[in-house]
Amino acid sequence: MKLIAPFRIALLLAFAVIASATWAQSSDPLSSWNDGEAKSRIVKFVQAVTDDASKDHVPASDRIAVFDNDGTLWSEQPMYFQLAFAIDRVKVLAPKHPEWKARQPFKAALEGDAKALAASGEHGLVELIMATHAGNTADEFAQIVRDWLKSARHPKFNRPYTELTFKPMRELLDHLRANGFKVYIVSGGGVEFMRVFAEEVYGVPPEQVIGSSIKTKYELRDGKPAIVRLPEIDFIDDKAGKPVGIHKFVGRKPIAAFGNSDGDFQMLEWTTSGPGARLGLIVRHDDAEREFAYDRKSPIGRLDRALDEAGKRGWVVVSMKNDWKSVYAPVR
Amino acid sequence: MKLIAPFRIALLLAFAVIASATWAQSSDPLSSWNDGEAKSRIVKFVQAVTDDASKDHVPASDRIAVFDNDGTLWSEQPMYFQLAFAIDRVKVLAPKHPEWKARQPFKAALEGDAKALAASGEHGLVELIMATHAGNTADEFAQIVRDWLKSARHPKFNRPYTELTFKPMRELLDHLRANGFKVYIVSGGGVEFMRVFAEEVYGVPPEQVIGSSIKTKYELRDGKPAIVRLPEIDFIDDKAGKPVGIHKFVGRKPIAAFGNSDGDFQMLEWTTSGPGARLGLIVRHDDAEREFAYDRKSPIGRLDRALDEAGKRGWVVVSMKNDWKSVYAPVR
Repeated sequence: MKLIAPFRIALLLAFAVIASATWAQSSDPLSSWNDGEAKSRIVKFVQAVTDDASKDHVPASDRIAVFDNDGTLWSEQPMYFQLAFAIDRVKVLAPKHPEWKARQPFKAALEGDAKALAASGEHGLVELIMATHAGNTADEFAQIVRDWLKSARHPKFNRPYTELTFKPMRELLDHLRANGFKVYIVSGGGVEFMRVFAEEVYGVPPEQVIGSSIKTKYELRDGKPAIVRLPEIDFIDDKAGKPVGIHKFVGRKPIAAFGNSDGDFQMLEWTTSGPGARLGLIVRHDDAEREFAYDRKSPIGRLDRALDEAGKRGWVVVSMKNDWKSVYAPVR
Repeated sequence: MKLIAPFRIALLLAFAVIASATWAQSSDPLSSWNDGEAKSRIVKFVQAVTDDASKDHVPASDRIAVFDNDGTLWSEQPMYFQLAFAIDRVKVLAPKHPEWKARQPFKAALEGDAKALAASGEHGLVELIMATHAGNTADEFAQIVRDWLKSARHPKFNRPYTELTFKPMRELLDHLRANGFKVYIVSGGGVEFMRVFAEEVYGVPPEQVIGSSIKTKYELRDGKPAIVRLPEIDFIDDKAGKPVGIHKFVGRKPIAAFGNSDGDFQMLEWTTSGPGARLGLIVRHDDAEREFAYDRKSPIGRLDRALDEAGKRGWVVVSMKNDWKSVYAPVR
């Protein structure tokens, strides 16, 4: 049988359509989620905004969903993974900086003294980030992060950090994309740190990653154009900075927001302030056995006000322990 | 004949594929371009990067193209259209600011004194922008721009500014998108000004518009979440700021860049610094009859160094006069 090219393409498309229709009937896109209120509200929201006949229908171009990263898409204990990177980086750079042995927060980083590190406060943290994240080109920095992700292991699970992403949340990303959503990461973490792995791990391309940033400048290095990273804060994408970051990068209001801490409060508040159907969701870390359990008192990922107000604001609270069949993907 | 739903969809798809294949053979996607080197280099570049068998093939996800706006996608004479907006805005706000009658640059704006306005320099321009672009919410500002675009007319052509986009460039945007490119606007103009019309006029959604910006903050106004515009420069997306803006918003290097002035030099330099196939293109305003003619001496859209170096850098120089069959789309 000889077919002209367009017909062959059309036939292939026909098979693809039939195959995917069959597949959709037989498989649950959120198979790592236990049946319950959380799952059912996600499913109903997606149905409502994608159903042409629904009063809550939203055109595909406006289906923007925003996800916090630390604690929402992957773990964040016992310390933000990017902080572990910064500490490892201090160790690598220490031979060039003998003065660090006597100076905080570097001394604490070198000695693995978490208490002294915490005591150095926000100022100490900024100093640590600047010393380890600036000075090189964007390409060089990305390579350093790539190499670190390959070799570093999480202290509790002894697995690469990129294997500590939440399977149910990855399914949710896929489910939203399959329904025409454009999915963004909106995180307090460094944008150039996350962009290194976001596409491979979450399927989120660099231009859909919004995060904190340091300033950069364009210059010729040995005659070659480069983006050079400067030791100066550009933008902090946390708390009230999250809606600002979304407005800056996306330019319109999302219809769904996913977070896990009070740092996501304003992003959830802004997203769910309507009009039309909106989904706000909080991942609650209540699973000490499979992951970690923490909320109101935790210095990392504190969940307090957002938990108090979730009910009256209509935000879904996901219990990691009860709503998730599994937390991480099985080790390959 | 009764078909189950997937089969009917497949048949519809089949017809769509056949129809578009037929269409592609009979129509020239760049029909407003005269045959010549400029058109042929564009066509060849797109063929090379989309051809699986070509050594220059680029996967669709890396097909990023960046376009300057003023002077590249629409006209910019006798003044940047956004400056015309700012001056009209000064007139609207003047009753609330009696002191403006005696104070530059406002006096010049109110009296239509272009010379005095120019003499107020960059500082005056910033003052004008802050007084007319800040203080309201993002939604309010967008509505003001929308209303202005409806009523304002270009002094030479007596047409709405949004009708002064270049037809050949709009064809080029479409041609690139039809070949899997993701197209960004990267302009010195204000991002929140451009986002109002970019989707309707160019088909470029808000999240693919990069521009200069003022700072914003998130706050509750009468209990409602809002993004409020502050009278403080956040980012100038011009000259060396363009590669910085692209890196910040897109996070990877484009493979094609389109500009018209020395303000686009670094964007062209960065984009065409490889590796692989790259396209840099400059629109030259040499058509006094149909648009405007200006280059090395013009305070607006000065084209000097980029013109000198275009040849050795392999950038295509488009003559508006010779390469374009028409400049604007016909008035409806």
